[in-house]
Amino acid sequence: MSEEFKPISENISASSSIQVNPYGPHPGDFLSNVGNFQLIESTLREGEQFANAFFSTETKIEIAKALDDFGVDYIELTSPVASEQSRRDCEAICKLGLKAKILTHIRCHMDDARVAVETGVDGVDVVIGTSQFLRKFSHGKDMNYIAQSAIEVIEFVKSKGIEIRFSSEDSFRSDLVDLLNIYRTVDKIGVNRVGIADTVGCANPRQVYELVRTLKSVVNCDIECHFHNDTGCAIANAYTALEGGARLIDVSVLGIGERNGITPLGGLMARMIAADRDYVLSKYKVHKLRDIENLVAEAVQVNIPFNNPITGFCAFTHKAGIHAKAILANPSTYEILSPADFGLTRYIHFANRLTGWNAIKSRVDQLNLHLTDEQCKEVTNKIKKLGDVRQLNIDDVDSIIKDFHADLTTPRVRPTTHDQGLPKIPHTLEELDEPEEKRTKTN
Amino acid sequence: MSEEFKPISENISASSSIQVNPYGPHPGDFLSNVGNFQLIESTLREGEQFANAFFSTETKIEIAKALDDFGVDYIELTSPVASEQSRRDCEAICKLGLKAKILTHIRCHMDDARVAVETGVDGVDVVIGTSQFLRKFSHGKDMNYIAQSAIEVIEFVKSKGIEIRFSSEDSFRSDLVDLLNIYRTVDKIGVNRVGIADTVGCANPRQVYELVRTLKSVVNCDIECHFHNDTGCAIANAYTALEGGARLIDVSVLGIGERNGITPLGGLMARMIAADRDYVLSKYKVHKLRDIENLVAEAVQVNIPFNNPITGFCAFTHKAGIHAKAILANPSTYEILSPADFGLTRYIHFANRLTGWNAIKSRVDQLNLHLTDEQCKEVTNKIKKLGDVRQLNIDDVDSIIKDFHADLTTPRVRPTTHDQGLPKIPHTLEELDEPEEKRTKTN
Repeated sequence: MSEEFKPISENISASSSIQVNPYGPHPGDFLSNVGNFQLIESTLREGEQFANAFFSTETKIEIAKALDDFGVDYIELTSPVASEQSRRDCEAICKLGLKAKILTHIRCHMDDARVAVETGVDGVDVVIGTSQFLRKFSHGKDMNYIAQSAIEVIEFVKSKGIEIRFSSEDSFRSDLVDLLNIYRTVDKIGVNRVGIADTVGCANPRQVYELVRTLKSVVNCDIECHFHNDTGCAIANAYTALEGGARLIDVSVLGIGERNGITPLGGLMARMIAADRDYVLSKYKVHKLRDIENLVAEAVQVNIPFNNPITGFCAFTHKAGIHAKAILANPSTYEILSPADFGLTRYIHFANRLTGWNAIKSRVDQLNLHLTDEQCKEVTNKIKKLGDVRQLNIDDVDSIIKDFHADLTTPRVRPTTHDQGLPKIPHTLEELDEPEEKRTKTN
Repeated sequence: MSEEFKPISENISASSSIQVNPYGPHPGDFLSNVGNFQLIESTLREGEQFANAFFSTETKIEIAKALDDFGVDYIELTSPVASEQSRRDCEAICKLGLKAKILTHIRCHMDDARVAVETGVDGVDVVIGTSQFLRKFSHGKDMNYIAQSAIEVIEFVKSKGIEIRFSSEDSFRSDLVDLLNIYRTVDKIGVNRVGIADTVGCANPRQVYELVRTLKSVVNCDIECHFHNDTGCAIANAYTALEGGARLIDVSVLGIGERNGITPLGGLMARMIAADRDYVLSKYKVHKLRDIENLVAEAVQVNIPFNNPITGFCAFTHKAGIHAKAILANPSTYEILSPADFGLTRYIHFANRLTGWNAIKSRVDQLNLHLTDEQCKEVTNKIKKLGDVRQLNIDDVDSIIKDFHADLTTPRVRPTTHDQGLPKIPHTLEELDEPEEKRTKTN
């Protein structure tokens, strides 16, 4: 073939290399905030709308303190008009003197606003449905009414000297012109943030990018985004929103919220570290992530999903032989995240039929035994053989290795008889050494 | 304010409305395949690399049959050179006579290719690492060697008259010019598909879109994409790849695979239904999704994640009063997916302090009791009060409603004494009727 291939530079240091990615954060994104974002942590608001959530005052305070210690920029709380205790809990958390700013989340009503500003919060997040669905089936108001009530509530909250955010609800099924009109209106009055909310989880990344970019050209204030996870895009949508110029992302621990929830704190941390590790580590105590997730998981009685980013039980487990070999040579080969950043460790899964001799060799070394490469390949074949007939554990592999090592020095007498049950599943190396057809058959 | 708001048309039918989204699948995407894609189901290849996975021959066959019944286009199997049993299982599944085409996944070696073509598969998926990391730390070959071995393997597999796919590995950390060179070379020889693999889960949607669009301009064959989920973007990346012109997506049930896995079958179905429900329902038996997920979850001993798209226990549970009210009026207000499509049902969670009187009114109707709106609001306040002090279940709510209804007709004598323990948590309506300060205190 005629083309001449020119491999690019090979000099990579393992430490710097994790982020190496020829595409990088998009160079054309002069508006991108992937290295300059803030978190609005909503476990105590959106998260309280999770089916299993009932947070006592003590639990709310424990979660708020843990999130504050983690370094979230804002903590959002359930509306004080939701219930009497909700109001008292809001007041209690405001009195904790946390570093994070405390927000509460209300409907676009003066009734709600009057209660909210008395709780001691640092800001109020106002939301109203703007989609044709919500206007028709929820509050039944038109855009003129929405604008008028927004103006009234915003000016009232501003008069109290605290932060105000105005968000539409179900933004991705709202009319674009309606949206831009109302956002421009509230921006002119002067809000701290406008919010885009994918309330139903219908948005996809390129839609998000376009809407944020468009809105960015209409308002001067910061843009906050809220993404539900019904179609599994909440993390990617949040990342793409930041690329488009959004500044703040709503998250909750494990993503708990209405239905199957919103952008999860941990998953977003994984995505943002892959984009700008230095920024994330300078701002957030990501090594506390596991404790915070366990705290909330226990409070709402769920298990950490097996496939959870970062803290899933196998997020840093490498199994196939080809993966294990390369990981042993350089972890960056198959890891974009460093488990050490999260106080976690990598695991190389060698007790299975997909294992390779490089992984077994490293186990042999761990056992402080000495085998040549050829001997490692031989014992690896024995391990793969047993791995073909049943699930292996580490003890299985270790005993196979140790027996093999022992045989090299002191050959044993093999038993000469076997029970005649067939098909027979071997559970010992001696059985494995029998001719295969005598042992078992398939189809 | 001066702007005149012009609400858009309000006439929406509930049936048609679920897909309504002014941004839609991107109108500019003349290359988009969001309505014309195929699935390469890799639970029996990538999924076997999941930490917990040990599939017996019987389990592999059961899973393959279930996936075939579901309607996946391809089923990908572990390399026959991985182990003796892997080869026998591959042969056994090829003999099942499934509608889905059977593929096996091998390294770019003639040794592997010679074994693979003898198993009876309909096609071979060849992969080789092209990133500087894998070239340096895995196979240690340069791009010239990669191209030469690719050509040899591809021509050999083609000579057997079966399908061939060539994929790079870790494509998003490979040099773009190297990639385009090798893809153009194999496309000229004539492969069925070229594959892009985000082996480490570092890619984000806009990178994916750009690489797919670029590759689309270089090759004539179909483009297949494989996304790992380390940063939670595997579903969104798959969707964006289809927007960019990719035709095939690798999935596994629950996303099981190396580390925390790849694009999950169920999550991708959720995303694609939101984009083109008719296409998905015409092709795939999505109502079988729950059974397939349960089958695989049991085989690898994991629980379905609480927040799993579609089949998570609360994916269609609505809790906050404002959500419940709108859902009761029209489910499309807060649902982009219809639970009925999956043989599932919606649940309105009314037994909590965030509940609203519309949800309670619907429960009153279900109980076949008759209360005015005012009375519903009154009993709702009693429910929210008890919901403030402890977690509620449906029986709590029903008894509160029934007691309230009974009181309207036959007022009861209230007990006059209470035990004096303080602070006292009420567990009855009588206790709730006491003055609050007598009942309990916070901070």
